[in-house]
Amino acid sequence: MINIAHSNSMELPPLGNNPSTHHAGTTPGSFANPPRVAPGAEGRWTFSSPDTPNMPQPSDKTAWDFLPDGWSTVELKEAAELVDFTSGAMRVVFLQSDDSRREVRIPAGFEPSTQLEWARVGVITPQMVRVAEREGHLTPAQVRDEIAAGRLVIPANKHHLKYQLDPMAIGRATKTKINANMGASPVSSSTDEEVEKLKWAERWGADTVMDLSTGGDLNACRVAIVQNSTVPIGTVPIYSMIIGRKIEELSHEIILESLEQQAQQGVDYFTIHAGVLREHLPFVVKRLIGIVSRGGSLLAQWMIRNSGQNPMYDRWEDICDIMRKHDVTFSIGDGLRPGGLADATDRAQLAELATLGELTERAWRKGVQVMIEGPGHVPFDQIEYNMKLQRTLCHGAPFYVLGPLVTDIFPGYDHITSCIGATAAAYHGASMLCYVTPKEHLGLPKKDDVKQGCIAYKIAAHAADVALGIPGTRDRDDELTKARAALNWEKHFELSFDPDTARAYHDEDLDVDTDFCAMCGHDWCSVRISKEIVEFASGKDENYQWNRAKVSAALTPEQREILEKRGHLSPQEIHQLASKTKKVVGANKDAKAACHSDVVDAESAKQIHVERLSSAT
Amino acid sequence: MINIAHSNSMELPPLGNNPSTHHAGTTPGSFANPPRVAPGAEGRWTFSSPDTPNMPQPSDKTAWDFLPDGWSTVELKEAAELVDFTSGAMRVVFLQSDDSRREVRIPAGFEPSTQLEWARVGVITPQMVRVAEREGHLTPAQVRDEIAAGRLVIPANKHHLKYQLDPMAIGRATKTKINANMGASPVSSSTDEEVEKLKWAERWGADTVMDLSTGGDLNACRVAIVQNSTVPIGTVPIYSMIIGRKIEELSHEIILESLEQQAQQGVDYFTIHAGVLREHLPFVVKRLIGIVSRGGSLLAQWMIRNSGQNPMYDRWEDICDIMRKHDVTFSIGDGLRPGGLADATDRAQLAELATLGELTERAWRKGVQVMIEGPGHVPFDQIEYNMKLQRTLCHGAPFYVLGPLVTDIFPGYDHITSCIGATAAAYHGASMLCYVTPKEHLGLPKKDDVKQGCIAYKIAAHAADVALGIPGTRDRDDELTKARAALNWEKHFELSFDPDTARAYHDEDLDVDTDFCAMCGHDWCSVRISKEIVEFASGKDENYQWNRAKVSAALTPEQREILEKRGHLSPQEIHQLASKTKKVVGANKDAKAACHSDVVDAESAKQIHVERLSSAT
Repeated sequence: MINIAHSNSMELPPLGNNPSTHHAGTTPGSFANPPRVAPGAEGRWTFSSPDTPNMPQPSDKTAWDFLPDGWSTVELKEAAELVDFTSGAMRVVFLQSDDSRREVRIPAGFEPSTQLEWARVGVITPQMVRVAEREGHLTPAQVRDEIAAGRLVIPANKHHLKYQLDPMAIGRATKTKINANMGASPVSSSTDEEVEKLKWAERWGADTVMDLSTGGDLNACRVAIVQNSTVPIGTVPIYSMIIGRKIEELSHEIILESLEQQAQQGVDYFTIHAGVLREHLPFVVKRLIGIVSRGGSLLAQWMIRNSGQNPMYDRWEDICDIMRKHDVTFSIGDGLRPGGLADATDRAQLAELATLGELTERAWRKGVQVMIEGPGHVPFDQIEYNMKLQRTLCHGAPFYVLGPLVTDIFPGYDHITSCIGATAAAYHGASMLCYVTPKEHLGLPKKDDVKQGCIAYKIAAHAADVALGIPGTRDRDDELTKARAALNWEKHFELSFDPDTARAYHDEDLDVDTDFCAMCGHDWCSVRISKEIVEFASGKDENYQWNRAKVSAALTPEQREILEKRGHLSPQEIHQLASKTKKVVGANKDAKAACHSDVVDAESAKQIHVERLSSAT
Repeated sequence: MINIAHSNSMELPPLGNNPSTHHAGTTPGSFANPPRVAPGAEGRWTFSSPDTPNMPQPSDKTAWDFLPDGWSTVELKEAAELVDFTSGAMRVVFLQSDDSRREVRIPAGFEPSTQLEWARVGVITPQMVRVAEREGHLTPAQVRDEIAAGRLVIPANKHHLKYQLDPMAIGRATKTKINANMGASPVSSSTDEEVEKLKWAERWGADTVMDLSTGGDLNACRVAIVQNSTVPIGTVPIYSMIIGRKIEELSHEIILESLEQQAQQGVDYFTIHAGVLREHLPFVVKRLIGIVSRGGSLLAQWMIRNSGQNPMYDRWEDICDIMRKHDVTFSIGDGLRPGGLADATDRAQLAELATLGELTERAWRKGVQVMIEGPGHVPFDQIEYNMKLQRTLCHGAPFYVLGPLVTDIFPGYDHITSCIGATAAAYHGASMLCYVTPKEHLGLPKKDDVKQGCIAYKIAAHAADVALGIPGTRDRDDELTKARAALNWEKHFELSFDPDTARAYHDEDLDVDTDFCAMCGHDWCSVRISKEIVEFASGKDENYQWNRAKVSAALTPEQREILEKRGHLSPQEIHQLASKTKKVVGANKDAKAACHSDVVDAESAKQIHVERLSSAT
């Protein structure tokens, strides 16, 4: 054995701006910027990814710059006494999470209604406490201050809180969230099927769900989904407004009535395409695929047929009053989002985005929580620009993006084409990712499409959170790596996001728990070899030590179904290799395979392997 | 109707460095750097993505700085006569693609053997001509000059050229390539199955294939794969070197004999883990998962048991002589690549990368073509650094990366976790992406896994090429967008990468060719609405005009199989909705659906829809 002595002779260029490397003690090089860390630790969390030069700079304004008439605020440098709001005082002074004090003056008799208004008067609501509990790396005071700044929203309709809603938050200070769309269309699906899809989406990690029903009994479906969901529910109210009438017949009154009805039903956020203006339509004329937002195209038709301005834009303050009363959060829609790479980042999209910034300011003045919806098709290199421009124009309001798809030629695989863009979008500043399923552009997603879409987006959200260095987000990856190093298959599967699928794929070839897998076999398992090198810590973590051979339980019906769906092995074939291997290596319950390195030395193992396994192959 | 007048009033921040936007005429803003364009057009192609500041800078050296003994070269500013090499002259002067002249002095009687050597003496080989033809945006002279600079390789073993090999090139100047791994393992698969997988991988777009067999008849399998492939074949020769012997028995002679044998069999590139040195092993000690490269772990065992240096490193020049004779290209292996996020970009990996740079220089001095292999698990934010550091240390030699995976907790979905990293890697400079299948970490990939892996990586490669603005790469996306805008389903499917799957998903709900799909239904189709807005060009491209209703052919067996694999609809259920819809909208062969907007106005269509379709739902 060579004596492994430590050496330190290596000169390398700096790693550069690298948020997540504060996890990796072994990473060489210095940092151009400090790594992202939790507030209070080595530095203040910046709540954002590094900016490439030439990118639009952050707005110097926050929601504090857009208070209602009669309000004023100032950050106090010197200490001041805390006045309890509940005493009805017209002046509130409270301690912010960065230890500065803020004074807020409000009109007499004002009663907060939204999470934003509670935050503005310094009150930490039970919902903020729950969010801090769920996020882990934030304090309730930080949650309140992010909400007051407009950078964080808690979509929690007062009526939905009476049912099963578990409050969550959307903003770059929190972990990245994902949304799953569902809803019956006139040609497919039913209310029961949609509620089943809701539960299925929750099972696979959807943080919010949008009911986009355009067919069947819309009210019944919406009420059923709100009452059965633990996650916030979003809708696009214009869909229900035009049932049974021509689009041009849509009146201001119908709009306000429908919004009031859905708000009372407990919907947590509304997508409202108020940013599509008459002045923007000329920018759409030469697009390859015009307007692909349903709400956007309907409102364009309304404006053309009625020669008028977007009614949602004209009645914005009235809409805000309804939103405020029930604390419904805005998801201001991007009706002019591009429908293909060719239309990405064009004048129509960017002109609307500027209007979304104006609507954000107006909503904040009315005390309503706001997030902004973002584009669906964007070439990979344009994603950071899109994220940073939204941050500039909308003063840091959370960005909720659809995908984006980074190529158009893979219909049937758009959960993949889009989760690539979604990862980059979240890393560059998006707060919530709206999933895309394999059925996108082709038909209404089925149950399995919902699962595939959710998983692709959990991957994107988690990869971005790790890259941003959000504290603790990489721990499970490291646990799984240790289980892998120890060749502890049971823990490997437990730590997997989808254990049944992982187990089924593994057992497809080899349903005996050896210290190698069917990919390389015994002699070729680099992980086993690393574990054997006594000097290496690899695979020797006592919590992961693999201590007895286990023959897997026969496949569960679910695992068998997974394999059958793969369709390239007949049920009879599935265990052929596995049982053969099991027989020849002689692994019985609670006994290790004869070739296991804990039972025999590598040489004898190899012997057994060559004699029994290879010959049997 | 409003009169849509064009307006130009919009001030927005610049788009910044944005290679691909020279496609998008509508993109506003100025460029920080010139967009990437084809040589000779608006500017010179830079063959790279934009650099984020603090990233390692490109090496100021190329392969021209590492010529064999007795060679010298100089770029001539003034004109000089061209001397034909075939005359056996010892001095060659030739015109480079940038119009400069280069003089090269070589020893008497020198005979070029590799593509690199031909390029160094100014000769454009038939393989270079074929590559220029396949790439489209490069001239044969540019291909030659990129090869001479060491930035491009053509892996084309002289013996493989006698069979069906269609020459291709790997380098950042060309389109991004993908590799598919296959090979029998001791516990799974056979030669026939591997050849079938080879054809399957070619069918799904693999640009090269690696035979990683470790079981069965290795020679027979390798020969069969070489003789049946139109794409370059790579191997990891150490696998066959240790069959039937202990790793520590591996001698320098056995190494050279095995390489000579595989070179004669026609293998186009060898992965050789010569960069794992004894001095690096201490850096591996504290890793979570040690060494995950099979070749790397075997050589580590060799060094420990024989207390010696890596034999591949010690005999590098002898190995180069074999490579040169048959023109086998090096794929210098990264034996210390990280096996989890926790081990990424650590001292072991970077120390080895520095050694790979030294080996590159030594190989170039021997006239051998070189590419470098890269890491498999890297947090998203560390990818650019990894790509740029390799470019610095290896002087621009093509980077061939595995994934990288950007999270570890999704076994069963690692084709997705890794194609996210692969897209970023290619955008930041990688030239070839080694696919990862859903079976990674779990077992040996089956036929369907090979397809899923190939498609995920075609997505990554194509998305990166579009982002880099490689001329023409976005054309097919735009064609498909136009077909979508025209609601021309036939062309939509034809232009899809996997038409059968796209068609099957579409027909799952609706196998009649209407001008809407089952996702939204007629009234809600934003694309149809955009098409109806007379002022819009959208959907009116005459080449895509949808001119007659077509009832889809009954599902082909392949399409039916795709749906059955999805497993969430019984065969009986599959067409239930579809045929219902077909019936009620009364679409017969060559007739449009009764609700089609070309037959009736939107109102009547809506009427028909409400009366027949919704009621039938």
